[in-house]
Amino acid sequence: MNDRGTIAAERARALALLREARRFLLIGHERPDGDCLGAQAALHRGLESLGRQVYVVNPDPPNRSFDYLSRAVPFGAYEEGEPLPEHDVAVLLDFNDPTRCGAMRAPLLAAPSRKLVVDHHPADTGEPWWDAAFVDVSASATGVLVWRILRELGVRLDEVAALGVFTSIVTDTGWFRYSNTDAETFSIAADLVRAGVVPAKLFAAIYQRRPAHEPLALARLLGRTEYFGEGRLAVVDEPLDALEEHPSDGDAVLDVLRSVESVEVVLLLRELEAGLCKLSARSKTDFDVNQLARRFGGGGHAKAAGATIEGELEDVRERLVGAALEALGESA
Amino acid sequence: MNDRGTIAAERARALALLREARRFLLIGHERPDGDCLGAQAALHRGLESLGRQVYVVNPDPPNRSFDYLSRAVPFGAYEEGEPLPEHDVAVLLDFNDPTRCGAMRAPLLAAPSRKLVVDHHPADTGEPWWDAAFVDVSASATGVLVWRILRELGVRLDEVAALGVFTSIVTDTGWFRYSNTDAETFSIAADLVRAGVVPAKLFAAIYQRRPAHEPLALARLLGRTEYFGEGRLAVVDEPLDALEEHPSDGDAVLDVLRSVESVEVVLLLRELEAGLCKLSARSKTDFDVNQLARRFGGGGHAKAAGATIEGELEDVRERLVGAALEALGESA
Repeated sequence: MNDRGTIAAERARALALLREARRFLLIGHERPDGDCLGAQAALHRGLESLGRQVYVVNPDPPNRSFDYLSRAVPFGAYEEGEPLPEHDVAVLLDFNDPTRCGAMRAPLLAAPSRKLVVDHHPADTGEPWWDAAFVDVSASATGVLVWRILRELGVRLDEVAALGVFTSIVTDTGWFRYSNTDAETFSIAADLVRAGVVPAKLFAAIYQRRPAHEPLALARLLGRTEYFGEGRLAVVDEPLDALEEHPSDGDAVLDVLRSVESVEVVLLLRELEAGLCKLSARSKTDFDVNQLARRFGGGGHAKAAGATIEGELEDVRERLVGAALEALGESA
Repeated sequence: MNDRGTIAAERARALALLREARRFLLIGHERPDGDCLGAQAALHRGLESLGRQVYVVNPDPPNRSFDYLSRAVPFGAYEEGEPLPEHDVAVLLDFNDPTRCGAMRAPLLAAPSRKLVVDHHPADTGEPWWDAAFVDVSASATGVLVWRILRELGVRLDEVAALGVFTSIVTDTGWFRYSNTDAETFSIAADLVRAGVVPAKLFAAIYQRRPAHEPLALARLLGRTEYFGEGRLAVVDEPLDALEEHPSDGDAVLDVLRSVESVEVVLLLRELEAGLCKLSARSKTDFDVNQLARRFGGGGHAKAAGATIEGELEDVRERLVGAALEALGESA
């Protein structure tokens, strides 16, 4: 399925579906992130400008960080048991495994609509279950694929669509910092600014709306930093009582610890409830945290992965540190 | 001096100087930042590729964050009393007031060379003292001006020159977050990635080389956060003993506090020695911290300013909070 001709044919089929159908249902994954919502916003505006009927429904409502999109785009949140809006084509954005749309999976697969996947994640092996796909795992965001689609459809992005694609790009590239940030990413960003996006305003909207207790929660977490393996591994744990008192933003602590020169791997381990922990792992180098997370029943990407792990915080932590040091080629 | 024709003529004169002269001395300001060093790196490579002799001398050596540039570009650090290298044209990059090159000012002004200013800062009023200028206050970085110059000179940027311009852009736009980030900024960034820049690698080089105690120092600072004026003002102070124990990066704490939704102004006040404090002030809104800093003998920009203030930490802090709340239209 991977030769150029097949991919081109598949994309042509995807574009044909978008050109021919009248009623679209845009579906995202559970806890839709910025890339998912941004791609939906852009495709929603683009298809509407072509006179199509477009519904957007996700398994969960958008996070308030994305209020500026929610004001312009009617993001629906699916409630179990309710019927899906009638549609000719279901567009799955930013995922390709139907289990990732949770309770929407059954009604989606039961619907007589054609299924179009628009995604930049690698597909699991196995037969494609969709009717058409616009997939490129080298694209920095699913929003980039929507940008390409709209260009192919001859749609000029309005300000909301431009905001959508920009949101996709910045949330999936860590605001142009991650290794997926390529020339196309910047080139599209330039276009989007010309279309009316104000980067500083968007940064404030997404990243500068934290609650006032967040700096104190971050202080508490950072104060628990421990280094192992000559500083190559940084570990922070968060017992349940602390988490309940001041829920904190895991990304911030992971960012700060990655900024330490010696650090290659960061593990943040939080106690969700007695006997259950949640791991967030990040890598700054070639160290593959996906491999590590898989050993504990989780997964993700090489540079960012996670797992939900049974066991007491202390025990889980010890096993994790041991496994990470072993993988780093260090002895504990 | 500000009409279009004059500016075009001035730029033409600047380009003529660059085309005609043989020996160049590139000069930056005191404590040269990423924009200054990046612009120098790019112009150095560009002029050398045209067969020119190029010296680079700054009042101070580069910070180790910019080692990746220092390895490729011979940044000289001026020592008082030593003669400047013989040169036909002195190019002042990222500043326009000769006092900003410290001890280099006197020998620079005494040298028989022609003076070319390449800068994006507003010039103080008064007669221009330079022979030519390539100035645009709307450019996001001085490196952007060097990029334009090299294009005019027909120079294709090599990897080091591209790294230089990228360094200028990311350090002066806060990695594409500040309000000076425009379409040109992104468009040039796309070009630079095509020329070999790897953004994630550069991010690690500039921002992920902190010492291991930094997260703990940040934790300690954040733990001292106090809010005033219904959360519009966030204040952190750092007594001398804490500063000595774990010197910390002020930017990180300022960034975290700005991420709080209610916060408009952040003040970080550090005790440099008994009776002497250093203020760093940041604004997230239209609130002008430059005005505030000026009231305490300092200055800067509307969104970022500072001052060195005499007085005991407690007293200075109280005066600052009072002044800030008054300016915010709040009563203490």
